[in-house]
This record gives sequence, C-alpha cells and structure tokens, in this order.
Amino acid sequence: MQLGLVGLGKMGANMRTRIRAAGHEVIGYDPRPEVADVDSLESLVSGLDAPRVVWLMVPAGDITRSTVSALAELLSEGDIVVDGGNSHYSDDSPHADLLGVHGVGFVDCGVSGGVWGLENGYGLMVGGSADDVATVMPVFDALRPSGAREDSFVHVGPVGAGHYAKMVHNGVEYGLMHAYAEGYELLEAEPLIEDVTGTLRAWTEGTVVRSWLLELLVRALEADPGLAQISDYTTDSGEGRWTVEEAIKHAVPANVISAALFARFASRQDESPALKAVSALRNQFGGHAVIDAAGQSVGETSTPDA
Amino acid sequence: MQLGLVGLGKMGANMRTRIRAAGHEVIGYDPRPEVADVDSLESLVSGLDAPRVVWLMVPAGDITRSTVSALAELLSEGDIVVDGGNSHYSDDSPHADLLGVHGVGFVDCGVSGGVWGLENGYGLMVGGSADDVATVMPVFDALRPSGAREDSFVHVGPVGAGHYAKMVHNGVEYGLMHAYAEGYELLEAEPLIEDVTGTLRAWTEGTVVRSWLLELLVRALEADPGLAQISDYTTDSGEGRWTVEEAIKHAVPANVISAALFARFASRQDESPALKAVSALRNQFGGHAVIDAAGQSVGETSTPDA
Amino acid sequence: MQLGLVGLGKMGANMRTRIRAAGHEVIGYDPRPEVADVDSLESLVSGLDAPRVVWLMVPAGDITRSTVSALAELLSEGDIVVDGGNSHYSDDSPHADLLGVHGVGFVDCGVSGGVWGLENGYGLMVGGSADDVATVMPVFDALRPSGAREDSFVHVGPVGAGHYAKMVHNGVEYGLMHAYAEGYELLEAEPLIEDVTGTLRAWTEGTVVRSWLLELLVRALEADPGLAQISDYTTDSGEGRWTVEEAIKHAVPANVISAALFARFASRQDESPALKAVSALRNQFGGHAVIDAAGQSVGETSTPDA
Amino acid sequence: MQLGLVGLGKMGANMRTRIRAAGHEVIGYDPRPEVADVDSLESLVSGLDAPRVVWLMVPAGDITRSTVSALAELLSEGDIVVDGGNSHYSDDSPHADLLGVHGVGFVDCGVSGGVWGLENGYGLMVGGSADDVATVMPVFDALRPSGAREDSFVHVGPVGAGHYAKMVHNGVEYGLMHAYAEGYELLEAEPLIEDVTGTLRAWTEGTVVRSWLLELLVRALEADPGLAQISDYTTDSGEGRWTVEEAIKHAVPANVISAALFARFASRQDESPALKAVSALRNQFGGHAVIDAAGQSVGETSTPDA
Repeated sequence: MQLGLVGLGKMGANMRTRIRAAGHEVIGYDPRPEVADVDSLESLVSGLDAPRVVWLMVPAGDITRSTVSALAELLSEGDIVVDGGNSHYSDDSPHADLLGVHGVGFVDCGVSGGVWGLENGYGLMVGGSADDVATVMPVFDALRPSGAREDSFVHVGPVGAGHYAKMVHNGVEYGLMHAYAEGYELLEAEPLIEDVTGTLRAWTEGTVVRSWLLELLVRALEADPGLAQISDYTTDSGEGRWTVEEAIKHAVPANVISAALFARFASRQDESPALKAVSALRNQFGGHAVIDAAGQSVGETSTPDA
Repeated sequence: MQLGLVGLGKMGANMRTRIRAAGHEVIGYDPRPEVADVDSLESLVSGLDAPRVVWLMVPAGDITRSTVSALAELLSEGDIVVDGGNSHYSDDSPHADLLGVHGVGFVDCGVSGGVWGLENGYGLMVGGSADDVATVMPVFDALRPSGAREDSFVHVGPVGAGHYAKMVHNGVEYGLMHAYAEGYELLEAEPLIEDVTGTLRAWTEGTVVRSWLLELLVRALEADPGLAQISDYTTDSGEGRWTVEEAIKHAVPANVISAALFARFASRQDESPALKAVSALRNQFGGHAVIDAAGQSVGETSTPDA
Repeated sequence: MQLGLVGLGKMGANMRTRIRAAGHEVIGYDPRPEVADVDSLESLVSGLDAPRVVWLMVPAGDITRSTVSALAELLSEGDIVVDGGNSHYSDDSPHADLLGVHGVGFVDCGVSGGVWGLENGYGLMVGGSADDVATVMPVFDALRPSGAREDSFVHVGPVGAGHYAKMVHNGVEYGLMHAYAEGYELLEAEPLIEDVTGTLRAWTEGTVVRSWLLELLVRALEADPGLAQISDYTTDSGEGRWTVEEAIKHAVPANVISAALFARFASRQDESPALKAVSALRNQFGGHAVIDAAGQSVGETSTPDA
Repeated sequence: MQLGLVGLGKMGANMRTRIRAAGHEVIGYDPRPEVADVDSLESLVSGLDAPRVVWLMVPAGDITRSTVSALAELLSEGDIVVDGGNSHYSDDSPHADLLGVHGVGFVDCGVSGGVWGLENGYGLMVGGSADDVATVMPVFDALRPSGAREDSFVHVGPVGAGHYAKMVHNGVEYGLMHAYAEGYELLEAEPLIEDVTGTLRAWTEGTVVRSWLLELLVRALEADPGLAQISDYTTDSGEGRWTVEEAIKHAVPANVISAALFARFASRQDESPALKAVSALRNQFGGHAVIDAAGQSVGETSTPDA
C-alpha cells in the first residue's frame, strides 16, 4: 500500500526504511529537505491516491497539533491520519474530532523499540475504530516483528487508548530501568563483587530477571566499563510524569514508578533545596556539622544526636 | 562426573534431572525416602568417589548450617561443598572456615530460574576459589542454558560473592515485578483500555519492556483473566529484605526496591496501624469523616480541609 | 467592619463565631436556612454597605465557581470577594478576571486550623493585591491567633499564591502525619515498647519531634487506646494530589509526600491489583505458594526462591 | 542527689549545667581535662557516695562498650549505670548483663532536645527496672521541662526500650524534616510564592503543620535567606538506618522514613551510579542525548521516546 510519513527524525527515517523493505510505497516529508521525499505537506498529500493514510512521527504537543490541523484542510473523506508520536492521550480525541469534521479518520499508535526497531521491529499499541485500524494493518504488519501479530501489536481500544497504553509502557520502563540501576549501584558498592559487568551479563540467560533492557545495560557496560563516559544527568520525555499523574487520577499507588521519576529529577539538580533545608534543620537543633557552600565544615557535631 | 545432591524439593529434584540428562551421575539425598536415592548423608558420602562434590539445595539458615556441620565431619581433604540455596552471604565465610578445618572446599552458588530451569537451564552466580569453581564446572555447565557460558554463569568473586549477587538479583526482581504490577493496575483502572491482557502480550516482542517476567505475567493473565483466582497477599523470602539492608549498609538509595518490598508487607496486613493513625489525626483536627471498624461513618466532613 | 460570609459548614460557622467575637458584623448565607442569617445571596449583598467584602467558605470546584459567577452579577465596583475554601490555585485567576470585569477585587486565602481554629485562631495564607488585602485585614486579624501577625498570616503573592501556599501546607501535612504514623506502627510492632501512647505523649515536650499534630495523635490514642474504633480507610481531599502534580510540574522530587498520598490510596483498596500481579508472577516462576481468593494455599513452595 | 557524668561534649556539658541548676551535685569526666571535673573514671567513681549513679553521654558503639566494661569493674552492688547516648537498643541487654554480674543496675535513656535542651529541657525515654528508674528519677526530673512529667518522660519498658523509643523518635524526625523540606523546595520553585520564609513563618501558629521543627526552619531561613550558606550534603547518625532495619524486621511499610533516609544518601554522592545506568540505558535504546562526564551532549535525541 501507499503511506505518507511526516517526520523523518531518527524514528521516522528508520520506520520509512522498514516499511519500504516490506514492499510498501512511502512518501516522506520533513522540513529538512535533505531527508525528505517531497517539499511540503501538500505535495505529500497530492502524491498519494485516495483513500490516503498519513502517519505522523513528529514531536508531541504544538507540532503534532499544527500538523493535524494542516492535514484536516488537505485530506478528504475516507483518508486516515495516524499519530505515531508520543502525544498525551488527551490530545487524541480533539484531533479525531477535528479530522472527523472532514470525514478523515484518526488512529493513535504508540510505537516502542527505539533505534533497534529498524532491525527488530517495533511494538505497536493502537487506538481507533476497527475499520480505520484494519485499513492501516499492512503498515502495522510491516513495522512489527515477524512473529505472531498479538505478541507485538494490539488494538487497545477507542481513540486515545493506543497512546494511553504507550504512556503506561513508558512508565513501566522507568521502573524497570531503575530497578536494574539500583541493583547495579549495589553491586558496584560491594567489594565482594569482583566483576559487575560479568555478573549482569550472567543474568541475561536462564535467570528470572533476564530482559532486553538488561542486555542493553550489559552492552553499555561492555562498551564503557564503569560507565566512566556517562553523566548521571538524566532527562525525561514526559510519559513518566503523565503516568504518575494518571496514577493520581485513578488513585493507583505508584511508588515504584514515581520513585524512578523523582530520581531523574534529583539527578538534574546541582543542589537539592530540600536537603539544604534538612541540613539547616540539623544544624539548628543539634549543632550538627554541616558542609557549607564552600566545602567547609561549619558548626560542631554534638556527641549524641538530637 | 559424580555429584552428591542434598535436598530434593522442587528445585533440587529438577536440578537432579537436568544434571543427569547431561550425562553425570547424581546421588540424591532427602529426608523423604520416596524421593531420595540414599537414606542418609553418610550413604551419600560413601557412595561418591573422592574427591567428592556435594551440592546443598536445602532451606537457608539452620538447615543449611546443620547440614554443613554434618558434612564437615563426613567429608575429607579435597572434597568440595557447594551451597546452592538462598543463604545469606554472611553465612558463607563461616561455612567455608568450618569446612576448611577439614581441608574441604566451599563454593556458594546463587541459582535462578525457578521451575522453568529444568527445561531452560538456570542462571548461576558463583563465589569461591578458582580451583574449587573449576572442579564443579561440569555441573555448572549442565545446569545452565546451552548458550555461551558467560551469559548464564559468572564466577563473581571469593566465597560469599555468589550469594551476594543472587541476593541483588532477587532485589532487582522485586523492583521489576512491581514496575509491571503498577502498570498492570493502571491499565486495569483506565476505561480506555479494553484489553489489558492483550496490551501486555503486545509488549512481549519489539518493545523496550519485553522480558521473561512479562511473558510470565501474560501467561498468568491468560490462565486467569483478571487474576480472579489469586489473592493479593504476597510473601517474601528474605532476599528483598537483605537487599534493602545492604543498600542501607552501603548508603545506596534504593527507593524502588524498598517500595516493592514495603508493598508486600502492606499486602499482608488486615489493617494498617499507620493509616489508622492518619485517619485518627484527620478526625482530630478536621472533623473529617472516618470509617469506623464496623464500616460506619463517624464524624462530619468539614467543608474545607484543615 | 462588615463581612458577608457564604458557606456555614463546620469551618464557616466557626469562623463566623470568631469574627463576631472580635466585634465585627457578619451576615452569613447558607442554603440550609437553619444556620443562615439571610435567605439568599441577594439578601446578603443588599445587607452590606459598599464597599462590601464577601468571603466564600464553600466546597472547591463547581460550587465555588458558580458562587463567584453569581456574585460577579450582584456586587459592584470596589467590592471584594475572598475565596477562603480549598480551591485549586489555577481557579483563582479566572475568578479574579471574571470579577475584575465588574471592578470587583479578588483575594484567595488558604485557611488552616480545622475545628480548633475557633478557639486557637487560624493560620492564613493570602494572595491578591496589596490594596485588597489591606481592606480585608481586620477580618484576617480576627481569624488568626492573637500573637504576632507574621506568625499566622502571610501575604504570599499575587492572586493564586494563597491557595498555592495552602496546597503545599496540606502536602507537607500529609508527610508529617505519615511520618508519625510509621513511627506509631513501629512502636506498636515492638514488644519492648510497653506503653505506646505514653511514649508518644512523652514526645510532646522537649523533644525534636514535638508538634501540634503529635498532641492530636496522643489525644486520639488516649480517647481510643490502640485506635480500635477507627478504620484504616483514609480519604484525601485533593491537596495532596495537587501537591504531587505540582512537584511533577516543577521537577521537584517529592518521595515523602507522594508516599503518604499513595498509602492513602492503598488503604482504600479491598484488594491490590498490583500485588495480585506480583503474587501471580511468583507463582509462575517459582511455584511459590499463593493464597487464592478463598484463602486457600495453591501451588507448592519451592525450596529456594527463584 | 549526686551524679557521675561521663562525656562532656556539647550534650553532656549542657546536661551537667542543667542538672546542677536543679540543685544536684554532678562530677563530670571527659578525656579532655579542660572540661572535666576529675581526671579519670576511677576518680569519678571514688568521688561518689554509694549507691552511685553514673550517666554515660559518650558516642555509641565501641566507646560506650568500653566505658561500660570499665565501670563494671569499678562500681559495686547497688550502683546504677545510665546510658544516655544513642546506643543501638541491642547493645543494652549485653551491657545490663555485664553490669548485673557485679550487682550493678542498668538504665537506657534516649535523650532528645539538642542544644536547646539546656534551656528548654529534654524529652526522655527510659528502659530498665522500676526500682532503677525510680532511683534516677531526680535526675530525669532535672533534665526534662518543668511541666507534667508524662509530657516529656516515659518509662517505656525493660532494658532496651528507652533506646528503641529514641530510635523510632529519630526515624520519625527524618520523615518530619523531609516533609518540610519537600514543601520548602516546592515553595521555592513556584514563582507565585514571593516570600517563602514568610510563608513558612506564617505556618508557625494556628496551622495544622505547626511544630518546633518548623520554627527552627524559619529561624534558619531568617538567618540565611535562601540557605545560601549551607550545602545540601547531609549526613546521618545511624538511627534512621536502624529504624528502617527495624521496619524490615517487623514487616512495617516505612516508605516515608526510608525515602527521607535515601535522600540523605543521595545528597552525599558526587554522581549517582544508578542514574548513570539509567542514562546509559536511554542512550542504548533510544539514541537519547546523554550528558557525558565532561558536560558534552553525546548521541542524538530521537523524536519520539522509545
């Protein structure tokens, strides 16, 4: 089939390659002409035969919103827009409504797999109507791994459900990564452990904790022993925050995922105002030694604590 | 080679089967005569040619300690005892010392894989001297999966290091399981998600969160949709607690693993004394409605909070 | 001065009493005629001389919004509305804008003190213009304790700042209450502690942890030893959730406040779906005994853990 | 009465002053001759009339143990040793047993109040026999505030109970301090809040969160606005760790206290190995930009997350 693909960043470009390798025609648009197949959304739309399918792989938020708005004007009854980016699920219904005015369908698709998806295939979580999903199925089949469809593709529910599932997927991912990270730190801290990387590698087959993330951690450690080349400054791209917000909304205790999220926040602070307050309190009541901003000890440690 | 195997519970019996399938001779002892090959530790020892290797697969703590003590009297210079159970790592050096008085070597081996290890092979984390480990290697090779040795076997360090690595492995396992569990609960809570099991199954290939534990969760949900047949009462077998204790000892922040541990504690409480205290406080300052032990609302809700 | 007071629930009625005791005239309106001084908002407004001050003490959300809308039509240039309820701070600017069209000022005021405020006075956190705040000051002075103004009153910043400060106040309150609650639970769990209530009471003077909340906890325990009459089911009234949402927005690690919030969520679950998932996983990999919904043990415990 | 006081650090010296001010005779010993009244433990003991009471205010662990051992040799039947330091409660029974061989009694006393205790009095939590506690009561009464005895003194239970209660007290203190600290950080982060110190000060009377710790936090902020002179590096003196260990032992969920403890651990790390692992993982699967150790961005950010 034919597909219009908007957004040819790392993910979009890889997806174009994989979809083409499955025998489909892909017309890609990106503001950077050196990677684009056409020079405008208009050219992309006019290059497709109706009914058209246009897949967005652009940053969530304003860019996705403006692209959907533009496509609402360019597309026609029976066409379908797929938002494959990481939009917040609450953006999906407004997008579906806006397109629906023009008779254009909307499907939201969470895509997981990172840079490895080109080779391995992507996991796909989809929201929308059964008919729209069926229309896009050849593209989904091209993107996912070659095994059983239900192991890497799911039609989760109505519009919004795909991005919701992807959001939770990423929230879980935060927790998983941090669980391995705490284990890694503990292994590094214990002198008995003479080979941390080897220990983690030996977990990759047979054990209960084996996973793809673990294989990636071993790969990172083998490339950079002790992770000497990497800072602990860790950003977050929104889904972890949204997952905790949804947990609050649904009154779901999410201690693990929120702990993983908060640890990333802390990693980006030069100084923790909270811990400055704790230090100040200790100094107030106990005369505890605190370290001032210049690294000097101030105050005197009392013998027993307060 | 020959192996004496003490403890033929679910794990031990499966391991006997797998080692025998690799062509080794195994003499198994267990206090339950219906599963044992010999009727006493003495018979087990006398049935092996020196230098002997005796592998323990018995409960950690007193039973392991008494078995090591008994073997110290029965074995001879050059023999080796392997503790494959879930002993706390601090038990290992005393065991090595006790056996060492008789010239008997000691190896601690953390074994992961559960009931699936019989078929898939086990992940193995080993502590001890290079010579002792080399002697036992044919058994390690029989137990682990058939791939590259370093993907499922590691000589972590000196005596104690194997159990230490296994303890951390299980601590990580607590965190991983709880990350999936929080995601599962959130998917269950959201009406958009029409197919929770299908969503989780679609994560098993291609996605970042794919893992063996996830496959098991899908398997459990397919067998028991909604987990209707399972209580939320969750026990713990020690390694999670030990991992948090080690985190405290090494000043490693372990928010994720401890949250997973504490959630298990909470699952076993009929009532939370802490939350009773919180409820009592709210009633004190705010006249907040609280639910009394008989399920009746007591007090009146003030309009604004305190 | 004169004050119109809308909302005569537990908090509002107490505040009316306290303001009157300070010598001011208060006209109170409430839909329940048995507590109201007038029978309508219109009567309340017409009973006040311009420039009027009308204080709202009604539930946050729709009721506050509709009351502000009604007052926007009834009040005149130079009048002031004070929202003393627990509105989300993001509601304040829209309210100020709506009233501002009619030349009516707006002040948001967080009020803390619960049912004890009648006697002790309330802590007040105020947002708005300096002029509007100055106009209402006699009422603020009547409500707060009789000590130095700055110990119980603060003009925090522009419109919204008062409710923001109150939200954080309540978030801190969640953390404080849960810290005492965890200590209480631990004292209850330890056999060495023969007198839990006495221990907590002995913390109320001289110690570092002394506070009003601690006094309330002792009071609750003295009235109901062991808190036998109180359920652990604990509700939340919004500010805790909002505080964690703000922490996420500002990338502030809020592990303590979120843990306190999540514990309340968990207290309201008959069963934890997350822990059911953990139990199911343990059963899958380890053949661990799990407790089924009917309280029967299913599966067999393997000797060592997975 | 007479008291021997061993250890004249900040706490011990203040306590000597307060006890003397109540009309008792205190003979103080410290290895630093400039603060001591006598030059040896022997002189201290010989300066007291039997039955003697000797109060230890020395660092927990080896120094307390060696001092108790020395006193066991120096004291006589009917004398009493009080350990007022922050010993782990499990040290108390061995000390009582060792002294008991010589007919010497033992009382453990947790002391709270910090440097303010000199003026305000200390909160006291005591373990031991009723007779021994009664003997020391005049000293307890001198140390505690002048109000009702039960508001600042408790005989918690047998030997060990006093230190257990003090440990929990300090664990609660960790949680309380961190709750205020998170609130402080959030107020600092929000532009609406124009006066953070003033907001906190306005919480000190009338509000639900009022406490002595809050007054100290305001005092610290008034002395050092923005806490500019204080580092966030925060040490811990053991009781927080012990409290979490006891929570693990008793299966008490302690999410708040452990979060406060772990935050201190994190504050002392130049880099978090765990977050380095998370960053490395993100780079592996997503080509996410990570910040290398030299502050340079490496890798390219993919458009959607993994």
